[in-house]
This record gives sequence, structure tokens and C-alpha cells, in this order.
Amino acid sequence: MQNNTAISQLIEAGKWVSQKGWVPATGGNFSARTSTGFVVTASGHDKGSLTQAHFLQLDHQGERLAGAVKPSAETQLHLSLYQLIPDAQCVLHTHSVAATVLSQITQEHQLDLTGYEMQKALSGFTSHLETLSIPIFDNDQDIDRLSLLVSDHHLHTPIEHGVLIRGHGLYAVGRNIDEVRRHLEALEFLFSCELERLKIIGIQAGVTK
Amino acid sequence: MQNNTAISQLIEAGKWVSQKGWVPATGGNFSARTSTGFVVTASGHDKGSLTQAHFLQLDHQGERLAGAVKPSAETQLHLSLYQLIPDAQCVLHTHSVAATVLSQITQEHQLDLTGYEMQKALSGFTSHLETLSIPIFDNDQDIDRLSLLVSDHHLHTPIEHGVLIRGHGLYAVGRNIDEVRRHLEALEFLFSCELERLKIIGIQAGVTK
Amino acid sequence: MQNNTAISQLIEAGKWVSQKGWVPATGGNFSARTSTGFVVTASGHDKGSLTQAHFLQLDHQGERLAGAVKPSAETQLHLSLYQLIPDAQCVLHTHSVAATVLSQITQEHQLDLTGYEMQKALSGFTSHLETLSIPIFDNDQDIDRLSLLVSDHHLHTPIEHGVLIRGHGLYAVGRNIDEVRRHLEALEFLFSCELERLKIIGIQAGVTK
Amino acid sequence: MQNNTAISQLIEAGKWVSQKGWVPATGGNFSARTSTGFVVTASGHDKGSLTQAHFLQLDHQGERLAGAVKPSAETQLHLSLYQLIPDAQCVLHTHSVAATVLSQITQEHQLDLTGYEMQKALSGFTSHLETLSIPIFDNDQDIDRLSLLVSDHHLHTPIEHGVLIRGHGLYAVGRNIDEVRRHLEALEFLFSCELERLKIIGIQAGVTK
Repeated sequence: MQNNTAISQLIEAGKWVSQKGWVPATGGNFSARTSTGFVVTASGHDKGSLTQAHFLQLDHQGERLAGAVKPSAETQLHLSLYQLIPDAQCVLHTHSVAATVLSQITQEHQLDLTGYEMQKALSGFTSHLETLSIPIFDNDQDIDRLSLLVSDHHLHTPIEHGVLIRGHGLYAVGRNIDEVRRHLEALEFLFSCELERLKIIGIQAGVTK
Repeated sequence: MQNNTAISQLIEAGKWVSQKGWVPATGGNFSARTSTGFVVTASGHDKGSLTQAHFLQLDHQGERLAGAVKPSAETQLHLSLYQLIPDAQCVLHTHSVAATVLSQITQEHQLDLTGYEMQKALSGFTSHLETLSIPIFDNDQDIDRLSLLVSDHHLHTPIEHGVLIRGHGLYAVGRNIDEVRRHLEALEFLFSCELERLKIIGIQAGVTK
Repeated sequence: MQNNTAISQLIEAGKWVSQKGWVPATGGNFSARTSTGFVVTASGHDKGSLTQAHFLQLDHQGERLAGAVKPSAETQLHLSLYQLIPDAQCVLHTHSVAATVLSQITQEHQLDLTGYEMQKALSGFTSHLETLSIPIFDNDQDIDRLSLLVSDHHLHTPIEHGVLIRGHGLYAVGRNIDEVRRHLEALEFLFSCELERLKIIGIQAGVTK
Repeated sequence: MQNNTAISQLIEAGKWVSQKGWVPATGGNFSARTSTGFVVTASGHDKGSLTQAHFLQLDHQGERLAGAVKPSAETQLHLSLYQLIPDAQCVLHTHSVAATVLSQITQEHQLDLTGYEMQKALSGFTSHLETLSIPIFDNDQDIDRLSLLVSDHHLHTPIEHGVLIRGHGLYAVGRNIDEVRRHLEALEFLFSCELERLKIIGIQAGVTK
């Protein structure tokens, strides 16, 4: 994909994600793979009012090709996801209340979801009886170290739809902008359902199911 | 009703339902009975931005009359509801957080609601002292089997306003587009109330009342 | 106030209340006192898209002066409030999730609120240390009987800002359209706070405080 | 900054804050330091539709320079914050459900937040492992006395991003309009997360962590 097309799609996605309330306080970052590497949002800036000037163009190794703005530290994690997952064309990283709280109260290193029809909105799922397992990584300000953990995990358990960073948020992955938006929306819906469910059945019952 | 009029009403309803957040991630499907059978939304597509091209026209047995788009597997359930309920003119199937969670945490095969003035927004109800009972069917990827269960149930307990599919969502039924929208909105309101109530009084107290 | 001016204010208020989600499924009704009696919304109709045609003009005894639409059964309660409270110029009756659930889970015949700065948005309150007491009446489909209960209550405990009907909603009262909108918004805010508080501290702790 | 520029920024911020639902029922007040002192919103008025006429211009001691409108009692607290914190250029005081409830159920005199990536949206924070401590002051209708408490507290524990008033709301502080808006949005996000977390893990577990 051309850089300009990719950036246009991410600007549009940013308005939608911001309106959902999933990128408060200039949080989050978005990227898309392109023919020359990938484009990614710069550090800071409200993600609901992005322009071409808020993007960096990086090559396949993450070196800057264009864009005068400051890169986000989390650019490294976007790069890793593109290197690990050949099919990944877009990554939307968001900070929702549900993703933040659910990843923080879950002691395990993954969030297992089952019994929801909405799982079928995630590519590859055909039944609510399957288990959707989203890995949860402990947050780390050392993004290189965090990226290594994600890479190591991917070797034995391939990442398909996204990962949660504890107390931080979601990285949703897709093979095109429509798929990543659908994955993001479906995962956020499932996180909201789980959070509501735990409020009623309690966290002990929730963990053991 | 003419196919084009029915489709226009469903397009308009789709914008409203989408704005409410009840059809995330291309979820849900909508239909309306017409003089030649019924019209129904195709598989996938965001339900908030439907056009004429996103609809199929089917006959009274569910055979395609027009529309090149892929039918949703759940078309069968719409067909069954029209066959079972002569008065049903519209069916709106939605995926809200409240309907999903409430149907999942309820062990019973129906959700009983009583004591709410809002019950009177459902046709036939004249008092909050009556009990509104919405059947809950276990989710099943075999829609023919699920439709049979719904049909069997209807023989002894006629379906009036809608049914819940566990962990999946609501099928709301009405005698025209205004009634189905009112039924949907009233049921979602009641589901939200029940969910809030259970968070405070606890699920044990909630079940026994 | 002239009937047309009053109706215009209620149409505008309806858009705002509807956008807040407090009049779902054609629920709620609004009125304003005028020089010839009062104007009130007809039965049914979405309260977010009212026109002049959706109002009745009634005299001081509740007899119809103009308007061909069907009166709501609850018109009687509006009339009673104007007869009981000489200062009342507007009544907004709404169906919010918070008002419905809070009135239903509270066993007492009033909701006592204290410790909230927002209480000062209600006319007459100057401190969060005072107690705001909103009466709760059991819902009754016999509106005449319900109105009598409200009248009897008012004799020993004057109604000032509004009343709750259990499992039904709020009747907010004000001396003009701005005051009733402020009362409604402040009470809904306080109901939301109480509901959130009870979810955390539990209803036993909430009742005894 | 010039008075007119400051007022324009606060009018724009008011639309955004109102749309978020954080200044219901004419609640809240906003101010900005200027070359001649500071500008501040008058008492009352909906904060989502402010005009130049809804502001007072005060000098460095809080004496009126311009503006015929009634000052809010809380003007004194804005003045104190500017006198205590030389870098403070803007103060946004809001009344959200989360800030109100969280400050009311917390027994301590501060709210400690840790483990959230969003803490980094607050100037000076570089890691989720640090603890963000927001002081909570008991509400007091005597604003001079409350201001003194805030001043005393600041002597031993400098206020950086804002303070909570119990059962009342948040005063967010920033070095410019963008920073105060980011602080406000980040703090509200964190309050929402904490409130959700406490609903699941319980307040006892929440306090001891």
C-alpha cells in the first residue's frame, strides 16, 4: 500500500476510535504496513484530529524515511508485530477503560474468552464454543525488552488478533484496515462483556468459570 | 409492504441501532416482511451504513428472489419467526453488552422481568405488576437446529416481543418498524436495569427475587 | 406564559432529554403551566422529535382546551403537581436507568442524599451537609390513586424538586424551564453517583451509611 | 496571555468538557492566568455554551477588573492555586460521577494510583511503576477555609496536577490549555478505571491493594 493511502485510512480510523473514547489524553498509536516499510503516528497529539503531519514513514527496520515529528517509544512494538506476523497490515493500539482494568485485575498471562457469539467477528473463529485467548504481557517502559517478550511468546503461541499490555491497553492487528477495526471493536465489546460479567459473578467465579 | 419501502425503513433503523452501540463489529441483522416474502441484511457489513445493495429479497420459503450479496446464516431464524408469528412484520437482531451478559449469567431458560413501568412499552402489557418473560435459547452454530428449538418452544409458549440467544444477543419482533424499534429500545432499557440491579443486590438475590 | 412559548420550550427540552437517554421507547411526558392552565405531551411519541401537534392544552382542572391527540394517563399527576405546588411552572417526567433501578432497590419511601456538592444545584440548598430527601411512591396504574398519595404526602412533607415512582422514573419540578432542566440534570447525576457508590460499598452499607 | 485569548480557550474547553458530561447542571468553573491576573467563569450558566459575557477578569489579588457577572464562591480556590503554583496557567474544575464517587468512598486524604500506563499523560511521570498521589480535601462551603487547607498541604506536599474535593469534584491544573485538558482527561480516565476495579475486587482489597 502507498504511504498516503495508509495514512488516510489511519486518520479516518483515528476519528472513529477517538469518538469511541479509546484514545484519551493523546494516548494510543496507529500504524500500517506500506511498500517501503510502515507509517506510524508520532508521539503525543490527539488521535481524533490527526493530519499527514502527525505521521512518520519508517523502513522495514524501523529507520526513519520521512516525517519530522518525534517517534513514540512504542514504535518498536509496532515494528516487532510486522516482523512477527507476515499477514499483519495494520496495528491499532488503544487505551480503553475495559482493556486497562481487565488486564490489570487478571492474574494470568492470558485472557480466555468463550461462549460469546462475538468471537466470530475475529478472523478464523467459527463458533462461540472455541476459546479466544488474548495474551497479556506485563507493562514495561523498556519497549525493546517488552518487544522481545512478545517475540518469544509468538514463537510458541502465534499472535493472531492482538495482545494486551497490563494496565496499559490493547494492540489490535489485522490484515487490512477494515479487519483491524472489526477486531478492535469486537475485542472491546468482549472486554466490556467480561467486565460486566465479573461485576456480577465476582472475580473468583470469573477466574474459575 | 413493498421491498424498497421495507429496505428504506431498515436502513434508517440501522443508523439508529448502530448509534446506540447495539451492532458492533458488523454484528446483527435486520429483516422485514414484504408482499413477496421478506428482505434481510446480508452477512457482514456495518449496520450503521447500509445501502440497498446490502439486502437480499427472499420469498416465503427463504429462497432468493434478488440481491447478489452473501446471506447470513441467521436468515433461517428470521424466516422461522415470520412463519411462526403471523403478525410479525419486522425483526431486529442486535448484539448489546447488556443482552449478551444477562443471557449468559442467567441459568434459566427465560428472563423474567417484573415491577418495571417500562414493560408497558411492550404491546399487550398494561401493568408493571405483570411478568414479562423473554425466552433464552442456548446459542448454536447450527441455525436450523436453533430454529427448530424456537419453533418447538413457540408451540407451547408463543413468542411475542422477542427472544434472547445466550451470549449472543436479542431478536426483537414487531408488527411494524415503529413497534419493533420501541420493543428493542424498551427491552434494552430493561436489560440495562436488570444488569445494574444484579450488580447491587447480587445474582443470588436476583434469581430468587 | 403563552401556550406556544411553553410548547417551544418543551420541544427543545425534549431533544436534550432524549439525547441524554432518559426517555427511551416513547417513555416520559413533559408539561408547563400557562395562563390558561397547562400544556402537556400526548401519549406515546418519541420525546426527542416533538412538534406542536404532540401537545394538549388543558385548563386548570385538566379539561381539554385544544389538541386532538390522546392524553397520557399520567396527565393527572402533572395536574396534581401544579395544584399542590403554586411555584411549579414546569414538570419533566423521565425514565432513566439510574432513577428506575435506584427507586426499585431502595426499600424506604424516600431516597436520602447527603455529602454531595451537586445538591446545591437544587434550589434552596446551600450546603452538601444538608440532606436532600426525594420521596419514592410505589408505582400504581391507577393514576388517580397515585395522585392522591402524592397529595397526602405533600400535606405533611412539601414536595420541592421532584418525586420518584418506584421502578418507573422521576418527576422533576421547577419554577421555569431552566430550573427544571437543572433539577433534572442534578438529580440524575446524584442518582448515578448513588448507584455507583452502592455497587462498591454494597446495599447494606448504603442503606445504613 | 491576553484576557481575550484565554477566554476563547476556556470557551472551547467548556464545549469539550460539557460534551464529556463532566459539568452537569451548570456545575464546574474554569480559569486561566493572564498578564493582568486571571479570568474565571461566573457563577451558574451551562459550561458548554459560554460566551465572553460569562467571564470575570480579576487581578493578582482576585479583585475585579472587568465583567458584570456574579463571581462564583470558588473563585478563591482558583486564586489560591495560581498563588501557590507559579507554573499553573489554567485550572479546570469539573464534577464527574467518577471523581465524585471515588473521592467520597475513599477514606484516606489522598488517592494513590499506580500500575497504569496512563499516569504518563501527567507531566513529570515516566513510568507506570511510580505512584500518582492526588490529594483529597473534605468539602467545605467556607472556601477561604478550604483554600487555607489546600495552601497548608502544598507547603509539605506540592500540588502538581490537581486536587480532589470529597463528594464534589476535581480541580485540574496545567501549564497551558493543552496540558490542563490532557491532565483532566487522563485523571478522569484513571478515576473511571479505579471505580471499575473497585467494583470487581471490592473496596477492602482496593484500599490495601
